[in-house]
Amino acid sequence: MTLPPPATGPNSAPGGSRRFDVGIVGAGQLARMTCLAAWPLGISVAVLGQPGEPAAPVATGLVEGDWHDAAAVARLGAQCGVVTLENEFVDAAALAAVEAAGTPVRPGSAAVAVVQDKALQKGLLRDADIPVAPFAVATRPDEIDAIGRDLGWPLVLKSRTLGYDGYGNATCASPDEATAAFARLDRGTGVLVEGFVPFVRELAVMVARRPGGEAVPYPVTETRQRNHICHEVLVPAPIDPSDAERAEEIAVHAAATAQAVGVMGVELFLMEGGAILVNELAPRPHNSGHYTIEACETSQFENHLRGVLDLPLGRVDMRCSRAVMVNLLGNRNGPSDPSIAAAAAIPGAHVHLYGKADVREGRKMGHVTALGGTLEDSLNRARQAAGQVRL
Amino acid sequence: MTLPPPATGPNSAPGGSRRFDVGIVGAGQLARMTCLAAWPLGISVAVLGQPGEPAAPVATGLVEGDWHDAAAVARLGAQCGVVTLENEFVDAAALAAVEAAGTPVRPGSAAVAVVQDKALQKGLLRDADIPVAPFAVATRPDEIDAIGRDLGWPLVLKSRTLGYDGYGNATCASPDEATAAFARLDRGTGVLVEGFVPFVRELAVMVARRPGGEAVPYPVTETRQRNHICHEVLVPAPIDPSDAERAEEIAVHAAATAQAVGVMGVELFLMEGGAILVNELAPRPHNSGHYTIEACETSQFENHLRGVLDLPLGRVDMRCSRAVMVNLLGNRNGPSDPSIAAAAAIPGAHVHLYGKADVREGRKMGHVTALGGTLEDSLNRARQAAGQVRL
Repeated sequence: MTLPPPATGPNSAPGGSRRFDVGIVGAGQLARMTCLAAWPLGISVAVLGQPGEPAAPVATGLVEGDWHDAAAVARLGAQCGVVTLENEFVDAAALAAVEAAGTPVRPGSAAVAVVQDKALQKGLLRDADIPVAPFAVATRPDEIDAIGRDLGWPLVLKSRTLGYDGYGNATCASPDEATAAFARLDRGTGVLVEGFVPFVRELAVMVARRPGGEAVPYPVTETRQRNHICHEVLVPAPIDPSDAERAEEIAVHAAATAQAVGVMGVELFLMEGGAILVNELAPRPHNSGHYTIEACETSQFENHLRGVLDLPLGRVDMRCSRAVMVNLLGNRNGPSDPSIAAAAAIPGAHVHLYGKADVREGRKMGHVTALGGTLEDSLNRARQAAGQVRL
Repeated sequence: MTLPPPATGPNSAPGGSRRFDVGIVGAGQLARMTCLAAWPLGISVAVLGQPGEPAAPVATGLVEGDWHDAAAVARLGAQCGVVTLENEFVDAAALAAVEAAGTPVRPGSAAVAVVQDKALQKGLLRDADIPVAPFAVATRPDEIDAIGRDLGWPLVLKSRTLGYDGYGNATCASPDEATAAFARLDRGTGVLVEGFVPFVRELAVMVARRPGGEAVPYPVTETRQRNHICHEVLVPAPIDPSDAERAEEIAVHAAATAQAVGVMGVELFLMEGGAILVNELAPRPHNSGHYTIEACETSQFENHLRGVLDLPLGRVDMRCSRAVMVNLLGNRNGPSDPSIAAAAAIPGAHVHLYGKADVREGRKMGHVTALGGTLEDSLNRARQAAGQVRL
């Protein structure tokens, strides 16, 4: 399967007389950091969300509404020169309606429709000869037994849609476990079933890309998860340079195949022996790219804006030799009362809070990036500072 | 003359139950960039100004009013944990009233009162054995002749207050010229008269400082003026390392003498033979420190916030070997219609627009910073990009 070519025509060039240059469907932390990158560039950004959300106070404008609501997405589209995303779960039909009404959506609705369905996404990648884990789609639980004989147990079952941070995934050791997981994960079109991948490291590459295909990969990162949530990102990934080079090539190929515009996060598995598989794509700024704010010449957020506005991409070279990002995850439930006072004492640690009014267990409340001469030193300082931030 | 010790007491530690953590008296580009630095830190900032001003849309809150108006300054103070400045012309009595009402002002009103009067400032520095140009205060035009015999012609006459970017200065070759300049520059308390300083370079050092005296100097910059307006800033200044070291020492000493809190810009003259004189102090973020956003571990704006909130200062090390900043000055009069599209094609150039609605001849509309391996390369790219920005 391949995607159709991107839409062209009078509205494929954004801008003109709309009220905002860019509209973001959503108002979370990714939209917030994109807004903060937009001000110095003179780019006006509207976000779709509620007043209390992270991006609302820093956007040029707030379009009040819910990103699940096609009418709200249409209202955003009518006011913006181009529309983009901060999550891939937005209804592709709502995005197609925005395009039909004359506002370009970047990445385009057809590309989003494929990427937001993990089974379609995987098929797209495989058909483009991009290495992925062996997989099949089970439309009924009784198909899983045969898939298990083919791919071998354990299997990883994934919801085709709306899965993130491990929500919607289940590793199953037996047909009984898989049958139970199927019932939980099926949203009506079956579930994606993957062979278990005994990776040695998880990697991620942010790729910045323009509508015409100009693309540039950021340095390869190693991502370390905790409870399936991205927890620490180390840059550059401590891997063989030839593996890093192949990871970048594969990421750029995957981004082109998925018709990325702006930035796309490409999650990868590094296998024993050096094989690299694509795990998942995120067609937007990504947690594994937060380190770029301090560590790279141009942040993922600025390059997302450049890409969706079809401006020349900024250089992605690192400005330091090593960087580590640690997420700040909620460790309680209640109103947030943030303070960086103690963390500010850790040299070279950069705290980013997302302005969320309430803390929840495991909720992404912010992150810390530390730059340094070695990964060990950067990791120690980022962890120390993260431990000192009051959420 | 020396300054009294800083105020202490229950309100010398900011914070508490005020609506905003920090209040800035003003809403121009310095306040704007300070606000952009505050969001990731979870620091709320109110600015005093009008809705159309650069900082208004990016502040946590806008207190509508004029920084010339003591009642407006008092309203700001009542809502903020600590009050700071983006210009040194704010009426020191208005700031003292804020302090008296229980809100700390950083830097303090007594320090601002001295720095905002160039004659008092110069006296303070000289009395602390900090090298300055020879000077005198003329309270009547007929005193200038004798000063000229003492210091030698030409003389530089300066308004004691409200001078900036060359406004309020006059270089006079003769008593007749000086008499005419006196009439123009005297605001009732006489004018500052300095001996002409045949400097070889103009330098500037930003110093970040906490209320308790902890201080750290940013790298020494060379500043190049055009029509008395800071036009280009080169970092590090291409001077002898021992001169740079002395410049930093003098700057830190000057900042301590003037009881800087937050950041202070220290403008210096480098003389033939290596002598260094302090020219002027700016008790706030400064045009010569804009390069720190990209080039240093912690920007001047973040360290200004850290300083006024009495938080540990961030590291000021450069993240690149060379950086050049070029100002974007208005070249016409009319509504602004900005675009970075052409400038975005220049690699490694970072554009910052200030969001001013109208362009005016010579008005600071933004700046460009380029990082590079050599000053020549950085300067070329910064100039190229600056030439491509549409204002």
